[in-house]
Amino acid sequence: MAEILRIGLAGLGTVGAGVVKLLDANAALIARRAGRPLVVTAVSARDRSRERGVDLSRFAWEDDAAALVARDDVDVVVELVGGADGPALTLAKAALTARKPFVTANKAMLAHHGLLLAEMAELAGTPLKFEAAVAGGIPVIKGLREGAAANELSRVYGILNGTCNYILTRMEKEGLEFADVLADAQRLGFAEADPSFDIDGVDAAHKLSILASLSFGSRPDFGAVEVGGIRDIRLADIRQAGSLGFKVRLVGLAEISGDTLLQRVHPCLVPCTHPLASIEGPLNAVVAEGNFVGRLLFSGRGAGEGPTASAVVADLIDIARGEAGPAFAMPALALARLEPAGQAARSGRYYLRLQVEDRPGVLADLTAALRDAGVSIESLIQPAGDADGVALVVMVTHETAEASVRAALAAMAVLPSARSAPLFMPILPEDS
Amino acid sequence: MAEILRIGLAGLGTVGAGVVKLLDANAALIARRAGRPLVVTAVSARDRSRERGVDLSRFAWEDDAAALVARDDVDVVVELVGGADGPALTLAKAALTARKPFVTANKAMLAHHGLLLAEMAELAGTPLKFEAAVAGGIPVIKGLREGAAANELSRVYGILNGTCNYILTRMEKEGLEFADVLADAQRLGFAEADPSFDIDGVDAAHKLSILASLSFGSRPDFGAVEVGGIRDIRLADIRQAGSLGFKVRLVGLAEISGDTLLQRVHPCLVPCTHPLASIEGPLNAVVAEGNFVGRLLFSGRGAGEGPTASAVVADLIDIARGEAGPAFAMPALALARLEPAGQAARSGRYYLRLQVEDRPGVLADLTAALRDAGVSIESLIQPAGDADGVALVVMVTHETAEASVRAALAAMAVLPSARSAPLFMPILPEDS
Repeated sequence: MAEILRIGLAGLGTVGAGVVKLLDANAALIARRAGRPLVVTAVSARDRSRERGVDLSRFAWEDDAAALVARDDVDVVVELVGGADGPALTLAKAALTARKPFVTANKAMLAHHGLLLAEMAELAGTPLKFEAAVAGGIPVIKGLREGAAANELSRVYGILNGTCNYILTRMEKEGLEFADVLADAQRLGFAEADPSFDIDGVDAAHKLSILASLSFGSRPDFGAVEVGGIRDIRLADIRQAGSLGFKVRLVGLAEISGDTLLQRVHPCLVPCTHPLASIEGPLNAVVAEGNFVGRLLFSGRGAGEGPTASAVVADLIDIARGEAGPAFAMPALALARLEPAGQAARSGRYYLRLQVEDRPGVLADLTAALRDAGVSIESLIQPAGDADGVALVVMVTHETAEASVRAALAAMAVLPSARSAPLFMPILPEDS
Repeated sequence: MAEILRIGLAGLGTVGAGVVKLLDANAALIARRAGRPLVVTAVSARDRSRERGVDLSRFAWEDDAAALVARDDVDVVVELVGGADGPALTLAKAALTARKPFVTANKAMLAHHGLLLAEMAELAGTPLKFEAAVAGGIPVIKGLREGAAANELSRVYGILNGTCNYILTRMEKEGLEFADVLADAQRLGFAEADPSFDIDGVDAAHKLSILASLSFGSRPDFGAVEVGGIRDIRLADIRQAGSLGFKVRLVGLAEISGDTLLQRVHPCLVPCTHPLASIEGPLNAVVAEGNFVGRLLFSGRGAGEGPTASAVVADLIDIARGEAGPAFAMPALALARLEPAGQAARSGRYYLRLQVEDRPGVLADLTAALRDAGVSIESLIQPAGDADGVALVVMVTHETAEASVRAALAAMAVLPSARSAPLFMPILPEDS
């Protein structure tokens, strides 16, 4: 058997401990598949004494993660510290500068500094790998970087945040409001104490910017992602969407058109017959559309100890096999700089929801606002008003420019009858 | 830009022409991703003059495919001839002996000779790649070989034959019988003039034996696959299954248990909530279950010019990038020899369908046969008998040994009231 691949592991949270457990549990199998044993030799974490369910006594310990890089018994560095900057970025730069292969699950760091790190990796001629950064255990980085490599991709989209999907599907199935499910999810460990990165769409946006770069051969451009979250989704929205044949999902979508790139994370209405509609609970799914392959779908567990460790170790096996090329599927210098797509370019069908005073004439004001903005309505539902004299109005538009929808909503928001800010969601086309 | 990768292409049917079209259409993009241009230099096919929608005049022509190997202007050989033996196998051996990387879409050849070819490839130190052999454009070979490489896989299964899935879903949606849909599928080009390889499950079995080898680190063992097809499925089965909350799908399933391997292609009842239930028409899908990653699903177009060409060229890009290790994910010598699982080991819930004489007492005979075999029934449906005095009886068993089901069916088949051979289908568990 060939030389051992010796791993320096920074970060021993859930995923870090999972990597140790996986390498223990599947050691013999992994050695057969990788052609050589994969062995952790040194670790680093904030708290040496914390109980993690794994025996750390056999590993050298470094208080400073960056010190892993200099160790002679470390061939490859795994970063599971997290955070876009700080120790994670310091470690990444140190590892690549030292020409040691670098594996990370850090989507925030890649979204912000992916191009720099890819350039450094190429300069050093050493692998930078990050399968675990997007969609947990689903090999979607590999699927796009290699599996779909022959294709010009037009669009990549999916359910990229398990916390949001867990909340939305529980709201739907149990008839609960957002805040109640969130509180329960926090209690059960499905949502962070500070859930804003997840529920406001930032985490999904980090991942989307990585997927877009891989799919379109463009520079990661997190700053250009339009980010929306699920805080404003009410049970009533999910119910109305359901009655119209849709599920509500937080969808990250990137689409290229000439030299412009649309990147958006937004709650969407997904037709019940669309594959994303059946992605429930904490699962993730990614769809890519290529000019020869058509529509590919990858789904599975998007987070958690086992799935994320599976992705980290898949990268390590690739490195052990010597199969690791450019980070973003092509040399960093070849990555295109794409213009963010303006809002003017956007069109489709939309779901609109308003809360208005429940009295005659209000509907006429709303429909006048739509007419003035040139928005044509396919259906309008006005469930019975509540006791406080507030009515919900739900509308689905025909194919229309998003700018028109926004104009109509802006006009509606300032009507005297308006009782809350209107909400809109794009409707994912059936065949997308 | 680095050296051109020069391709010798044998076979210019649908897929071969698709490869030429793809390499033309996406040439610049592929060169960026692969790090160098991919160019066909020489081709071989049976009929030089046939119109294929591609300009062949720029390529050297060889009447004998094996002559491609010896050409100085061919770095890699692509085999799209088909057939388990004959010219395809001759070409494969010639290419590997000459240490030229070999790419094939030929599942029959791999199912029968995969181990030998993998050994030859290793001896030569040259890649043998076959992404296109299973599930068309879906990168499932890569997904199992690399993406899920960190996992001990317990089970791999899926919808592996688009023709069967097309027929079954059209029967379901249009209320047609098997023979009518088959005839129409042949007319439309979705089924071959001789459809037996597809509808009798042989094609799916070829693919399953490849997936099993990759998943379990075992030698491809096509001979041990139990093969069943869809000829005997009636519209009534699909309707009854539907009323019970199931879809009928032809499922290829491989499952490891200790040193024994179950490989089976059989029509199954799939719960409507299972991801395979939503795979419709000519789509394919593969599910793999790993001990850390959990359940992964890959789906997309399983056949056709574009998707299959996409997979062939993905392999070529891997080769151009220098990313190509052992064919079956580990050295051929390390592949285990697993015992075929005996029928005794099998258990689950089953769907049974019988045609019997429509008169009092028949049901008592049937239930006595079940009792004698120790099979317990969860539900029994007896739709109204037809005009000829023949009644359909449909039963769903509780969890039971398959041997008991077979014993009961054997007893039922010889009852005086039996009007046709009974049919059974395993029911896929909800959480599988």
